[in-house]
Amino acid sequence: MKTGINRQFRLAVRPVGDIKESNFEYREEPISSPADGEVLVRTIYLSLDPTNRIWMSDMPQYMPPVEIGQVMRGVVTGVVEESKNPNFEPGDLVSGMLGWQDYTIVAENNILSLTSLPNPLPYSLTAFVGPLGATGWTAYFGLLDIGQPKAGETVVVSAAAGAVGSIAGQIAKIKGCRVVGITGSDEKCQWLTQELGFDAAINYKTADLESAIAQSCPDGVDVYFDNVGGSILDAVLTKINLHARIPLCGLISTYNATEPIPGPYNYNQILMKRARIQGFIILDYLPRWSEAIRDIGQWIDQGKIKHVVEIVEGLENAPLAILKLFDGNKKGKLIIKVSEEPS
Amino acid sequence: MKTGINRQFRLAVRPVGDIKESNFEYREEPISSPADGEVLVRTIYLSLDPTNRIWMSDMPQYMPPVEIGQVMRGVVTGVVEESKNPNFEPGDLVSGMLGWQDYTIVAENNILSLTSLPNPLPYSLTAFVGPLGATGWTAYFGLLDIGQPKAGETVVVSAAAGAVGSIAGQIAKIKGCRVVGITGSDEKCQWLTQELGFDAAINYKTADLESAIAQSCPDGVDVYFDNVGGSILDAVLTKINLHARIPLCGLISTYNATEPIPGPYNYNQILMKRARIQGFIILDYLPRWSEAIRDIGQWIDQGKIKHVVEIVEGLENAPLAILKLFDGNKKGKLIIKVSEEPS
Repeated sequence: MKTGINRQFRLAVRPVGDIKESNFEYREEPISSPADGEVLVRTIYLSLDPTNRIWMSDMPQYMPPVEIGQVMRGVVTGVVEESKNPNFEPGDLVSGMLGWQDYTIVAENNILSLTSLPNPLPYSLTAFVGPLGATGWTAYFGLLDIGQPKAGETVVVSAAAGAVGSIAGQIAKIKGCRVVGITGSDEKCQWLTQELGFDAAINYKTADLESAIAQSCPDGVDVYFDNVGGSILDAVLTKINLHARIPLCGLISTYNATEPIPGPYNYNQILMKRARIQGFIILDYLPRWSEAIRDIGQWIDQGKIKHVVEIVEGLENAPLAILKLFDGNKKGKLIIKVSEEPS
Repeated sequence: MKTGINRQFRLAVRPVGDIKESNFEYREEPISSPADGEVLVRTIYLSLDPTNRIWMSDMPQYMPPVEIGQVMRGVVTGVVEESKNPNFEPGDLVSGMLGWQDYTIVAENNILSLTSLPNPLPYSLTAFVGPLGATGWTAYFGLLDIGQPKAGETVVVSAAAGAVGSIAGQIAKIKGCRVVGITGSDEKCQWLTQELGFDAAINYKTADLESAIAQSCPDGVDVYFDNVGGSILDAVLTKINLHARIPLCGLISTYNATEPIPGPYNYNQILMKRARIQGFIILDYLPRWSEAIRDIGQWIDQGKIKHVVEIVEGLENAPLAILKLFDGNKKGKLIIKVSEEPS
């Protein structure tokens, strides 16, 4: 039986505006033992994602919010330490929606949310947090299933240097599209065009957005993969083509708002261009995730998809590291390394 | 050869805010004769529709705007007076996107926009302006193709007493849905529930919208057929169900705006509920209009679809009558009777 300390961050106070370290309460508890049907998972990597900000709020949302006093919810990649469930054995690598803590007991009624990773692992474990994990699936299904890009079309991606956007843009390139990324620094623009093969990139902090989009998208915009909302969405709407598709993946520009914020001023272009906006989250596609892993894995093997992971060491740094998602100072997938990978 | 006077209204000045009579210029010209390939159509009924307001503006829109000095564009049901086109004969009843005038010459390169009505006519000619015309097709394809209502679901329709909304709501009833209409007077609410069979109706001018929608839609909203946009859309968004569909048919609340107006404040519910908003206009469905005529005609025969037409006599009254579309003082389809039906 595993003994020792389980470090945790619990939600102490819902954020007003930006997340602050004081929104979390640090606590130490003894490691619990699994009851019949349960599994004890040790956290190796904790994924930090913009949607964490939604869960911390009590706005109407796609899952129940995290309650005050609960362990903060997070996507975890870990290893089974003890199992009283026939489907899992000690040593299994798993991923699931667990918590900001060293160890999580997965209850029997929640066991389906725990996924076994392939054994042996065909790629690095961090790849399963990034392009082969939830953010990769999000890019894959949002772009292909909802965006339905056709070769020769123009695809614009916002938060293009992020975990989801960088993969979505590369998949659009694989599908033969012109791909334009919108991101927040010249350095990230360079990374998109020189390393990831985007056709153009726009620094939204310095560009005149409407004219930059017009210039980068001479044939208009057929698919806009939106992670951001707000004024970037408004600018893209001025350039959408007839029957454009807008997979609505995130609204990071709005999550920290403290007042009601308006939808896009150019909303009427949805009517005028007979466009489609469709919200989605990856939970809707879980039954099909093997498709995403198969294709993205192949593209990684072929060198067609590159990915970067920014690793912050130590669970204790999670409350500060999550701010990086909102200040634009990161590329690719942000994860916390909580403990060592099995050797 | 037809001789005489052709009365016309041309666009004089683009409206700022509400349409005014002074936006139109009245003119009299001699009736023209068709050249080879052309057809001369006498206007019998002129359809007045909210989308006319869009055409009068120069906002980015789904067709070229009417230019200053051009005859105002309108959907016309009429009779061929003279034809130099092999597909039309004098006496044919036709409908098409013609103009606010007694007689229109349809050019050869525009002849495909002219549709022959069935001969003999199985329903009244005004039915072909209403439920069997463009507004009926709009209701039919917008609801069924984009809204995809399933029996037992809840469908909310805004501008529900209008030409499109009243038909969309009745089709949703035929499909086995709970149907809630939003309109602008108690009298129209009564008409919706007592005459047209809606399950509930809400007077948006007097109700607390969010709570009225919650009360009328105890199982939430699966399909919102939106003709209106604005604050009604915002209120409905608070009650949409997972995977709701929002056919975006019109934004009448915004057409008269003189300043940029925000999109829905609850836009984030599109993400949270993984909903779909899709703009459409009937031009996209023209190849399939026989489906709409077949089904709606059958439903009229079976007494399942009722419709009312509000007829204003005289082309000269068109510039004033169109205001009725925006002040909420009409039910069903608004048309101008310009000349007599053939006996």
